Amino acid sequence: MPFDFETVLDRRHTNSVKWDVADNELPMWVADMDFQTAPTIQAALNKRAQFGVFGYEEVPMAYYQAVADWWATEHHFRPQVDWLMFCTGVVPAVSSIVRKMTAVGDNVLVQAPVYNIFYHSIENNGRHTLSSDLVSQDDQYAIDWADLTAKLADPLTTMMIICNPQNPIGIVWSRETLQRIGELCLKYHVLVVADEIHCDLTLNDNDYTPFASLTEPVAHNSISCVSPSKTFNVAALHAATLIIPDDHVRALVSRGINNDELAEPNSFAIPASIAAYTEGHDWLHALQTKLAANQRQVQTFLTTELPQVRLIEAQATYLLWLDVSQVTTDSTALATFIRQETGLFLSAGGVYRGDGDRFLRLNVACPTSTLTDGLQRLKAGITAYQRTQA
Amino acid sequence: MPFDFETVLDRRHTNSVKWDVADNELPMWVADMDFQTAPTIQAALNKRAQFGVFGYEEVPMAYYQAVADWWATEHHFRPQVDWLMFCTGVVPAVSSIVRKMTAVGDNVLVQAPVYNIFYHSIENNGRHTLSSDLVSQDDQYAIDWADLTAKLADPLTTMMIICNPQNPIGIVWSRETLQRIGELCLKYHVLVVADEIHCDLTLNDNDYTPFASLTEPVAHNSISCVSPSKTFNVAALHAATLIIPDDHVRALVSRGINNDELAEPNSFAIPASIAAYTEGHDWLHALQTKLAANQRQVQTFLTTELPQVRLIEAQATYLLWLDVSQVTTDSTALATFIRQETGLFLSAGGVYRGDGDRFLRLNVACPTSTLTDGLQRLKAGITAYQRTQA
Ligand SMILES: Cc1ncc(COP(=O)(O)O)c(C=O)c1O
Ligand SMILES: Cc1ncc(COP(=O)(O)O)c(C=O)c1O
Repeated sequence: MPFDFETVLDRRHTNSVKWDVADNELPMWVADMDFQTAPTIQAALNKRAQFGVFGYEEVPMAYYQAVADWWATEHHFRPQVDWLMFCTGVVPAVSSIVRKMTAVGDNVLVQAPVYNIFYHSIENNGRHTLSSDLVSQDDQYAIDWADLTAKLADPLTTMMIICNPQNPIGIVWSRETLQRIGELCLKYHVLVVADEIHCDLTLNDNDYTPFASLTEPVAHNSISCVSPSKTFNVAALHAATLIIPDDHVRALVSRGINNDELAEPNSFAIPASIAAYTEGHDWLHALQTKLAANQRQVQTFLTTELPQVRLIEAQATYLLWLDVSQVTTDSTALATFIRQETGLFLSAGGVYRGDGDRFLRLNVACPTSTLTDGLQRLKAGITAYQRTQA
Repeated sequence: MPFDFETVLDRRHTNSVKWDVADNELPMWVADMDFQTAPTIQAALNKRAQFGVFGYEEVPMAYYQAVADWWATEHHFRPQVDWLMFCTGVVPAVSSIVRKMTAVGDNVLVQAPVYNIFYHSIENNGRHTLSSDLVSQDDQYAIDWADLTAKLADPLTTMMIICNPQNPIGIVWSRETLQRIGELCLKYHVLVVADEIHCDLTLNDNDYTPFASLTEPVAHNSISCVSPSKTFNVAALHAATLIIPDDHVRALVSRGINNDELAEPNSFAIPASIAAYTEGHDWLHALQTKLAANQRQVQTFLTTELPQVRLIEAQATYLLWLDVSQVTTDSTALATFIRQETGLFLSAGGVYRGDGDRFLRLNVACPTSTLTDGLQRLKAGITAYQRTQA
């Protein structure tokens, strides 16, 4: 079945965070896509709107069944339905879990450069971020195991947040790596939160390993967070699921999520998620093909037109990590300049910490014509910037 | 324009919390209505579903403008748009405000019998509930001012939650009473949270006074919570608004609401709320007429068929407070019995505390035929219960 990823949609003046920009600007920053969602989801939303009554909703077993079936089919791993818990979003869940499962003043370990909102969830709740920065070599990132081990061994470190696949660097962590991290966390009494929101958006057969599918002791020391939001471009559907194999951990987290008023679905979250997870396979596979093609377009463009910018190959996500170290060591200044000069609005890498100051993040979930426009602007911006530096 | 409040909708198996009951049961408990919402809201939801892109949403000025206009037209008071803040719900807001604006171990004052979830928001966050119980005399509730003053004067009391109109007793508090409470709170450094979620559902011209419309110093010591959810039967739309006249209080609450991940609207919350507040006036006025008629039906029925149950006249809301003290002093046992015997599921009053053990709460937001069925079951249940006691 053919799906449409080429029509340019007008998202200006639609309350879109991404498209709240000046008329001449092209936003390729925040993580949502310039595509309509899957037709089956649209149909489910229409049907729910039609019903006309929007009272208090509960989460039916059919929802958890749909999640479990999706994982079994797409990811070759079936979570038990009683491990699953609805939540209004992944960031809400991470924030709530930080509050519930760690104490003020604790360290929460992350691996920078990583999704910047983790820092908010940790620090706005009075915890400390401890990063075991990933080490980059030859356009690839690797874990410094000695550093990671030492930081996990600190008794003040009580939680680790893993991002798999990792935004913004595009890595899909291997089963071996995850198992090794999981065993270290177990050894040092560090609870694992695995943010797997990008897990469906793997590219070129880079399969992802659900953290809950690791060995039983490791899985029982973890909470995984998944959602149809990135997969199907439904961030504002406010639906996510927590996978929590351990009864005791689940009971505590459930209390936290309920207490923080993040446990109740809106009228649309459940029917749309069920439609996505039962009938969204073909759409996702078509999307993956499109995203891989868009990455190739970027790769080709950079190689031929803008060799001073290097692409870190993304194994997953539509967020590309561009190494601009040959252009600047202050990518924030560069991003600001590019926006002013060309209207292209992308994310400066510094907010992700680690070595982010040498990177830009480009969201390529858009039609070809939009991407082409964005790349031209990128080239114009970089070239103009280099002239100012000369 | 005629609106339909008489069609009996089948809400079974629709993920409705209210209707998750056995086949023979009739739920008249949780506070949502067995009516479709206003046609203008349905149209807005359909339109939003049609658009097909559901990325991150922001709250446009048009939303705040619609809220302000609604208050000006319906409640003769125009809040400044910069006083307003979106939130995903009233209970989420109250819980977040309790966490942000009081300390663990503080007292939060309420006036029992009152909406039971206040107790969760207070106690699940480690604060203490201090109730200045309302005193009932001749089927009317009144404030014990000496008791209230003493409890507000306790330095450990740092917040008071007012429910206006008050669920479950149906009182619309007068301007004089609110101003007097507000001045006491100011004097004793107690921040006021005014839950005004039922404010549009006033009956028989019992106008409500927005707390934010009181004298400036009193209003500046307050946070009011409003929402289209009860008014238009859109609880699971997850939309509410905070009215906070004071800049400093607003900055603190805003930080709390954001930190608790309750600040972002889902895709449907904004367009549906704007439709409600700009075009929902006629529908609301028709609804008020229907709810007043339903209350009269109950009053007539009780007087003629079931005089041992007395109705506390509701000036607002569709939640009727039934005095069953001539039948029992344990309304929980009575409610359980009625449900078992007749399938009628209503709320036992004990959860609202105060003198709630002598009351049942009946939700009358339903078509006439449903209400008639409910009243027959109520009579059958009460009569059977009295036989068991004889
Ligand atoms: C790793 C990661 N987690 C979470 C989110 C956001 O999740 P939600 O919108 O469900 O809060 C994002 C969005 O970009 C993300 O990249
Ligand atoms: C007084 C009061 N406040 C709040 C609520 C619920 O508000 P929300 O659904 O917006 O959390 C109710 C629902 O019955 C209520 O009666």
